[in-house]
Amino acid sequence: MSDLLKKFLSGDRLALSRMITLVENQSDQLPAIMSEIHQHLGKAYYVGVTGPPGAGKSTLVNRLIAQGRALGKKVGVIAIDPSSPFSGGALLGDRIRMQDHASDEGVFIRSLGSRGAHGGVSRATRDVVRLMDAFGMDWVLIETVGVGQTELDIMEIAHTTVVVLTPESGDTIQTMKAGLLEVADVFVVNKADREGADKILHELKAMLEMSHAEGWEVPVLKTQAFQNVGVKELAETLEAHRRYLNVSTKLQEKLLALREAELEEVLQESFRQWLKGEIPRRPEAEALRQQVLSGAISAYEGASRLFPLLQGPPAKR
Amino acid sequence: MSDLLKKFLSGDRLALSRMITLVENQSDQLPAIMSEIHQHLGKAYYVGVTGPPGAGKSTLVNRLIAQGRALGKKVGVIAIDPSSPFSGGALLGDRIRMQDHASDEGVFIRSLGSRGAHGGVSRATRDVVRLMDAFGMDWVLIETVGVGQTELDIMEIAHTTVVVLTPESGDTIQTMKAGLLEVADVFVVNKADREGADKILHELKAMLEMSHAEGWEVPVLKTQAFQNVGVKELAETLEAHRRYLNVSTKLQEKLLALREAELEEVLQESFRQWLKGEIPRRPEAEALRQQVLSGAISAYEGASRLFPLLQGPPAKR
Repeated sequence: MSDLLKKFLSGDRLALSRMITLVENQSDQLPAIMSEIHQHLGKAYYVGVTGPPGAGKSTLVNRLIAQGRALGKKVGVIAIDPSSPFSGGALLGDRIRMQDHASDEGVFIRSLGSRGAHGGVSRATRDVVRLMDAFGMDWVLIETVGVGQTELDIMEIAHTTVVVLTPESGDTIQTMKAGLLEVADVFVVNKADREGADKILHELKAMLEMSHAEGWEVPVLKTQAFQNVGVKELAETLEAHRRYLNVSTKLQEKLLALREAELEEVLQESFRQWLKGEIPRRPEAEALRQQVLSGAISAYEGASRLFPLLQGPPAKR
Repeated sequence: MSDLLKKFLSGDRLALSRMITLVENQSDQLPAIMSEIHQHLGKAYYVGVTGPPGAGKSTLVNRLIAQGRALGKKVGVIAIDPSSPFSGGALLGDRIRMQDHASDEGVFIRSLGSRGAHGGVSRATRDVVRLMDAFGMDWVLIETVGVGQTELDIMEIAHTTVVVLTPESGDTIQTMKAGLLEVADVFVVNKADREGADKILHELKAMLEMSHAEGWEVPVLKTQAFQNVGVKELAETLEAHRRYLNVSTKLQEKLLALREAELEEVLQESFRQWLKGEIPRRPEAEALRQQVLSGAISAYEGASRLFPLLQGPPAKR
């Protein structure tokens, strides 16, 4: 076991921080790290918080941290920020807003960039969630900015997904179009003191009734995160969903699908890395690659001729 | 050459429609189809239209169709709709709104679902864009609903990307966070008669000045798509960007990166398909897969032990 891992397991926050950086940079040590912490997983409760930009997700997460701390929970937070085109790094906004908890040893907050390799964000997020779990956090809150397929993919690891909307979020059709209805275990109408809150609340309820979901009945809560209104009720609802998951088979099914997808993903990544070395070693394969790059043939044609070339015994290293 | 392809090349709209369905369903015939149409590519101009939900993108696309038709252009439109949880298919909203052009032979509109296999949407979109190009469309407009990594990936095929915002789109920080600044070749502030239009216009311009992009100076236009105001100017701006691309090296660089990524993607897909048959044929590999599924070992550990097993000569078929 590496020194870093020993420090991590003894509760060293700096070691956690370093290991997250290794995940972000897709370090070569990643497979070893994730395999070693694997046995320490399964204690934390993973909560996703998503919704359109400007819904007040960061404020709500901030309030949930305080709520968790009041209950004696250790809370990890992962905020997924698209990188800024200016800095090349994550914007500091959410981190700054969350600095209320900066000096609390029971809270660990980290921003992750959302751009980069395809599928890279959801994989990195999952691994960081697990690092926080193995580190001993009781709650891991995952905040994703914006809506889209990537955000929905990220939410696959969450036990409970909270979708935050506001009276300004537009009509419920837009919510459906964004695929949010399917991922929501709990809906929150934030900024509920604004005009239109009851309208969106009723629309969401009507939409949920139409969807005839079985088992868990998705609740629609009203909050005013800024004024700390409705946050306690949200925390109670999260606990209720957690209890529901413990008695239903849903979580088990979700885990099975997630593990299958992850195995495939990591194998694909191994293949991708292997390819980079393998194509240049095989002149026939490299020639096909060049034909694709020049536009002479389609990627499909290139791949269908290239793939069989790779299936022989690999070239000597 | 298949009958379907012959009909397609002779301008049969039903054949185009069927071929798009083959792309959507990731048919086995896809590699052959895309390879055969490859030689007919390169005539159309691909324009992406993206932005947050509710910005009026569909209305703007609708106006651009009319603008293109007035110029004698044949126009293909691909609207990417997240699938509805009710129907399992795409919502009909955008198609309905676009039915102004339903009887025009010079217009072909198709909605694609945005959910499904990872990376599946952007690949399918690219292929449908190419089908429309090979079919003889002069403009191919690609409308993506929402913002997120997937939407940004989809835009990689566009020659010109139009980002549509409204005075209600929230502050420019949100725009930056969503990664829209980097993909925009043209900004449009739609619903420009509403309060705050000039504010967002100036903020965008200030932001663009700060970003010091070289070459093309990203314009910020005002439109009122519903009232058909500013659409002609937008069409002229699109043509100006197209002319810019013809004299710069930017398009060539973009194509090279796109082709490299596509080759890798198709090879990965071949590997994924191959895996499905290969793992069950190798008892040692299958045992590792089961250990991952049960949670006994991490996906990383499973993959790192499984991948080398696959590298020997493939099992006899």
